[in-house]
Amino acid sequence: MHHPQEPSRNGRSREDLAQATSDILARLRTRAPRIHCITNAVAQNFTANVLLAAGCVPSMTLAPEEIGAFVAGAQGLLVNLGTFDAERREAAEIAVGTAAQKKLPWVLDPVFIERAPPRAAFARQLIGRGPAAVRLNHAEFSALGGGTVTRENAMANARAKHMVVALSGETDLITDGERVAAVANGHALMAKVTAMGCAGSALVTACLAVEPDAFRATVAALVIIGVAGELAAEQSTGPGSFAIAIIDALHNLDGPPLVARAKVS
Amino acid sequence: MHHPQEPSRNGRSREDLAQATSDILARLRTRAPRIHCITNAVAQNFTANVLLAAGCVPSMTLAPEEIGAFVAGAQGLLVNLGTFDAERREAAEIAVGTAAQKKLPWVLDPVFIERAPPRAAFARQLIGRGPAAVRLNHAEFSALGGGTVTRENAMANARAKHMVVALSGETDLITDGERVAAVANGHALMAKVTAMGCAGSALVTACLAVEPDAFRATVAALVIIGVAGELAAEQSTGPGSFAIAIIDALHNLDGPPLVARAKVS
Amino acid sequence: MHHPQEPSRNGRSREDLAQATSDILARLRTRAPRIHCITNAVAQNFTANVLLAAGCVPSMTLAPEEIGAFVAGAQGLLVNLGTFDAERREAAEIAVGTAAQKKLPWVLDPVFIERAPPRAAFARQLIGRGPAAVRLNHAEFSALGGGTVTRENAMANARAKHMVVALSGETDLITDGERVAAVANGHALMAKVTAMGCAGSALVTACLAVEPDAFRATVAALVIIGVAGELAAEQSTGPGSFAIAIIDALHNLDGPPLVARAKVS
Repeated sequence: MHHPQEPSRNGRSREDLAQATSDILARLRTRAPRIHCITNAVAQNFTANVLLAAGCVPSMTLAPEEIGAFVAGAQGLLVNLGTFDAERREAAEIAVGTAAQKKLPWVLDPVFIERAPPRAAFARQLIGRGPAAVRLNHAEFSALGGGTVTRENAMANARAKHMVVALSGETDLITDGERVAAVANGHALMAKVTAMGCAGSALVTACLAVEPDAFRATVAALVIIGVAGELAAEQSTGPGSFAIAIIDALHNLDGPPLVARAKVS
Repeated sequence: MHHPQEPSRNGRSREDLAQATSDILARLRTRAPRIHCITNAVAQNFTANVLLAAGCVPSMTLAPEEIGAFVAGAQGLLVNLGTFDAERREAAEIAVGTAAQKKLPWVLDPVFIERAPPRAAFARQLIGRGPAAVRLNHAEFSALGGGTVTRENAMANARAKHMVVALSGETDLITDGERVAAVANGHALMAKVTAMGCAGSALVTACLAVEPDAFRATVAALVIIGVAGELAAEQSTGPGSFAIAIIDALHNLDGPPLVARAKVS
Repeated sequence: MHHPQEPSRNGRSREDLAQATSDILARLRTRAPRIHCITNAVAQNFTANVLLAAGCVPSMTLAPEEIGAFVAGAQGLLVNLGTFDAERREAAEIAVGTAAQKKLPWVLDPVFIERAPPRAAFARQLIGRGPAAVRLNHAEFSALGGGTVTRENAMANARAKHMVVALSGETDLITDGERVAAVANGHALMAKVTAMGCAGSALVTACLAVEPDAFRATVAALVIIGVAGELAAEQSTGPGSFAIAIIDALHNLDGPPLVARAKVS
């Protein structure tokens, strides 16, 4: 059973998705959604600064006594498994429960699950609890039991779990099981900055907080971070200055360069 | 019972406070006080770099076995509630006890207490243990039971608890219950960098370590970080480059620009 | 029993060590070793970015369920005691055990052990478990029971424990008990950036992962970070911009400037 990309069916041209991305960024600026992040210690500071630059209000607490209240008051939740420990596992259980109650969108970023079986098992369990989107690379997709990395397998997984699958790579593949988009924005320096992927997943969460169509929200987030990366690379002399320039670029980004530079197909 | 600001009574003109600020910064450079910080994971790195740029020696351990020794060897203690967890609560109990024994000044920064009741309750308990200063925004002031945010309420709280209250906002209000100062230095980009407020509170702690008058120390810290922010903004193209430039500005700051730029009234 | 540096015996001229450093950096670029770091929360982000800039793949998990798997899949292990807590002590026990089984080189960085006795005791116990190298400053050397800081004492310690001792200071002293080198590269701003020393120790680990001679690997790492620091200082206006510029410099560094600038004797 194949579900190839059919432009007539998903009804999204490049122009539609680029314009939607511009609209979603504008909504981030005006609504300033609160995004709660359970993320690894390496990524917390950079992720918070990326969310602030995009117009959001980040929070990061992990304490079981209060994470429920923080998530209940937020508009989106990120669960990143980059440092997998008892504290974050407990935090994730509570936070995902609150998100379900409040019908908040949440995103799973199963970092490095191919490196340790307990992490992969926990990720599989979380997938069963209904994330709006999962963002992962090819090795993580396979470790999650997704099978060989193909467009068809990504679509089948998205359909089976009723979620958006965003496969990162040279070109990102985004699918909700029916629609498929490829996003080719970005720059090689993005792979040389720690937590860049984690921050990208936080931005997916942010876009889900202001756009009910999870497919469009995910495409928008990946275009936004990719275009910011391209703009930042023009100002950078290496990964250190790049990491700073991408925050500036995100902060200064508005619709026209997004529409002009979006590489979505 | 009103305690309006009376220049004749608090004996502080703008020039006096600006010069005191310059003197306090010079003392930070020569004395290099050790400042122990219990702070949230998002803020640790930036806070340490701000303290180093100001001339201090930061430490950050939370381990119950050794935090007493670290605080006993320090000249000031910061307790920031930005990530409120069992480890940090236990660390705070021990550290505040050691600070009391050693008569060290300590500062409470009750981040986000309006978002979760247990955090607010813990903050109220800590207030009872005698911080030299508490630094908080308007929402946090109300959550702490301070009542409506007015100058009179801030003064009443400061007087009742024998501490300096530093209310952050467009203009910062600092009072010890008798004296009141308003500090208008700073830049809008400061709100777009995570941990900027936390680092400001660390700088309050640093100034308390070298200046026995807690009111003057707190004013000095907020002028120093505000002027550094103004200088940084002139070199920045967004919040990423701003966060870097403010570290450089703090490192390079000396008396004359402080005296020239201080907006204290 | 004296073991003075004997050029004829250690067979290392400045040119030999400078060329070895260049070769080791080239190997980092081509082999991209996985380096697992148990390090303090203040240092995690900067350390990861330094390792990425040098061409390595960092990981940082502390969870007991999976740290064994991460270390088993890595080519080097760093144990930094900068935030000494129960979680990291347990992580270190497991990780060092795995490193021994897999015959992986590991490095101990006993940060601030002079400030708290329990930390010093734990460091002494870890020394007994066979690190390839220990990197520490003068206060830490004394706290570790190394005696007065002299070249002879450093050599005696290195010989007794079959490890490389790298004493940081204005000039770094590196010895394996037989050979001794002094590395004079670096810049004063390195002391004004938090986690710079921690990141340097991570780079020692990285070089050990691609060079079996622990003495040459350690010298190489300290020359590399020192030269990167010198290049960064030329682009910097303070410690903020310096911390960014050193990441760029590491990323862009190759053999010729290393060979030209290495100050090894």
